[in-house]
Amino acid sequence: MNTLPERVPPPPDVRAEAAARDHQRQLTKPPGSLGRLEELACWFAARVGQPVPQMPRAELWVFAADHGVAARGVSAFPQAVTGQMVANFAAGGAAINVLARLNACRIEIVDVGVATDGGTAPGVRNERVRAGSRDLASGAAMTLEETRIACAVGERCARESVARGATLLIAGEMGIANSTAAACLICALTGAEPARVVGRGTGVDDATLAQKLAIVRSALRRVVPHPAHSPLRILAELGGFEIAALAGLYAEAARSGVPVLLDGYISGAAALVAAALVPAARDWMLASHRSAEAGHSITLAALGLEPLLDLGMRLGEGTGAAIALPIVRAALALHREMATFTAGGVSSGATAAS
Amino acid sequence: MNTLPERVPPPPDVRAEAAARDHQRQLTKPPGSLGRLEELACWFAARVGQPVPQMPRAELWVFAADHGVAARGVSAFPQAVTGQMVANFAAGGAAINVLARLNACRIEIVDVGVATDGGTAPGVRNERVRAGSRDLASGAAMTLEETRIACAVGERCARESVARGATLLIAGEMGIANSTAAACLICALTGAEPARVVGRGTGVDDATLAQKLAIVRSALRRVVPHPAHSPLRILAELGGFEIAALAGLYAEAARSGVPVLLDGYISGAAALVAAALVPAARDWMLASHRSAEAGHSITLAALGLEPLLDLGMRLGEGTGAAIALPIVRAALALHREMATFTAGGVSSGATAAS
Repeated sequence: MNTLPERVPPPPDVRAEAAARDHQRQLTKPPGSLGRLEELACWFAARVGQPVPQMPRAELWVFAADHGVAARGVSAFPQAVTGQMVANFAAGGAAINVLARLNACRIEIVDVGVATDGGTAPGVRNERVRAGSRDLASGAAMTLEETRIACAVGERCARESVARGATLLIAGEMGIANSTAAACLICALTGAEPARVVGRGTGVDDATLAQKLAIVRSALRRVVPHPAHSPLRILAELGGFEIAALAGLYAEAARSGVPVLLDGYISGAAALVAAALVPAARDWMLASHRSAEAGHSITLAALGLEPLLDLGMRLGEGTGAAIALPIVRAALALHREMATFTAGGVSSGATAAS
Repeated sequence: MNTLPERVPPPPDVRAEAAARDHQRQLTKPPGSLGRLEELACWFAARVGQPVPQMPRAELWVFAADHGVAARGVSAFPQAVTGQMVANFAAGGAAINVLARLNACRIEIVDVGVATDGGTAPGVRNERVRAGSRDLASGAAMTLEETRIACAVGERCARESVARGATLLIAGEMGIANSTAAACLICALTGAEPARVVGRGTGVDDATLAQKLAIVRSALRRVVPHPAHSPLRILAELGGFEIAALAGLYAEAARSGVPVLLDGYISGAAALVAAALVPAARDWMLASHRSAEAGHSITLAALGLEPLLDLGMRLGEGTGAAIALPIVRAALALHREMATFTAGGVSSGATAAS
């Protein structure tokens, strides 16, 4: 999927991380008393390759696409809502727009495969691969070529952000029925039982949940018997255009040595794809929150990630990541700006314990 | 402790809360998908008495005092660190200063009872009741009159913030050995077994932890046999000046109809005191984070509060609350600024579920 297939993410800089830990021990607070904020600062130090990193420059991307499987009635919302929400993003009225403004964060909306006209609203980048994916219940959702193109959209977006000086990327999504596609990918890539992974998404009733589960099981019967399937093939069979773009962005950010702050359930499925395509991409991922969608915990465990927040959110769009962004910023501001014991004239207590 | 003892906190406005819930259902997202952020917005609506509250104007207070019990060797740091940290606050070098700047939040440092000269640094408000409390292991930490004065300091600070237009108060503390005093108060006010409440504070070793536990048990034997003790008397016996000021601020904020965002372990002990003095004050409290100090969960359960964050923090100063402040702001910004289904041209899905 990359023009330079041999390009791999750089390894984290363990010397910068060790120096960051030393720096933390000099700050005017009991050692360890900032908990995960200390770990976060050292994690960034290792990625940036500096003991005291600059404040992160974050950018936000939202990828939207439709899903053929929506026709099977797996969502509480009609397919037209994808395009309507894209227009809402373009007008600045969606949750992710509010959070982008609050965090003074650049946001870009990309139509990777919306089925209706909303995707062509002014302010929306048109990268539409196709007017929605095919029904994954009856065959491959995308061709391999379409999948490569959608991944490349995400890769280009990552490169564009990095070229602008971004040092932290957030990507979110919108796509009616995409929790069905994400559930398929999570099951296929982790081996988890569908009943543990398929959830209520936007809030479906019991009958729709049963229908959704049956579709996921059926799609997995079609795809899983071929363990030789490449990650790209699994993505093509079970995914969608916005999920492919997310995976491409995550993989390319890692190759560029730029961390990503994951969002929730759909984002997690895309992160699994990215980690399957580019194993070292995992080292560049931070988990923002634990989604209320039960299968997300399985995804986080498979990625080896512990989220910062658990607020019962399940909206997508990148909102969970945007809520966690101030925590990342706080961790780095504390690391950069706190006085040291020496400069602050404070006894470190090391020799003073009774 | 109040010049108008009959003054009680106003009740939350249940009509404004119901209207806020209606408003949430109109916003362009699946119902409930913002999880606790939706609850937070409705909680504020009930406190402010408006379905769509203004953005909160937060102010931060840090109360510092010393503790006679520090002489017993219950902390990993010498008593002089309290005054040194006050000077560090005044110079802007402590963790809470960094977070106040990052959140553009006014911060005031108050010396309520520091034992050394640091408390008199420029930029520190001098409200010193006494140069440190007495040793709670051998008798009352404060007289009732001193306790009333320290509570009144916190009350005045709350009134000052409210007069300036603050609509959300955060208070933190600094005081070497104050986790011993807080442990005593938590045990006395919740009935919890000391071994479950006494923790390592700033990071004491096993021997010091055992010593700290023995002191807490001994102090509780002195105080608890008198169940008729008023909350003020328990505070005087086992507390400290900064804890009394925190309790006064929490009680007075509630009486003024202004919410408080609690911090961690010491703040929680003060909140228990405030709720014992003014039961309805509990309705005006939000829990920011779960401290790494184990006894904090007992405090939160006794207050009926579920924290927003669990990041392994145990620093105090108000830092946990300051880390949670952007989440509160995000909840209210989303509530205020998101488009409605009608205005955003988005199908609500209510009648469209398959």
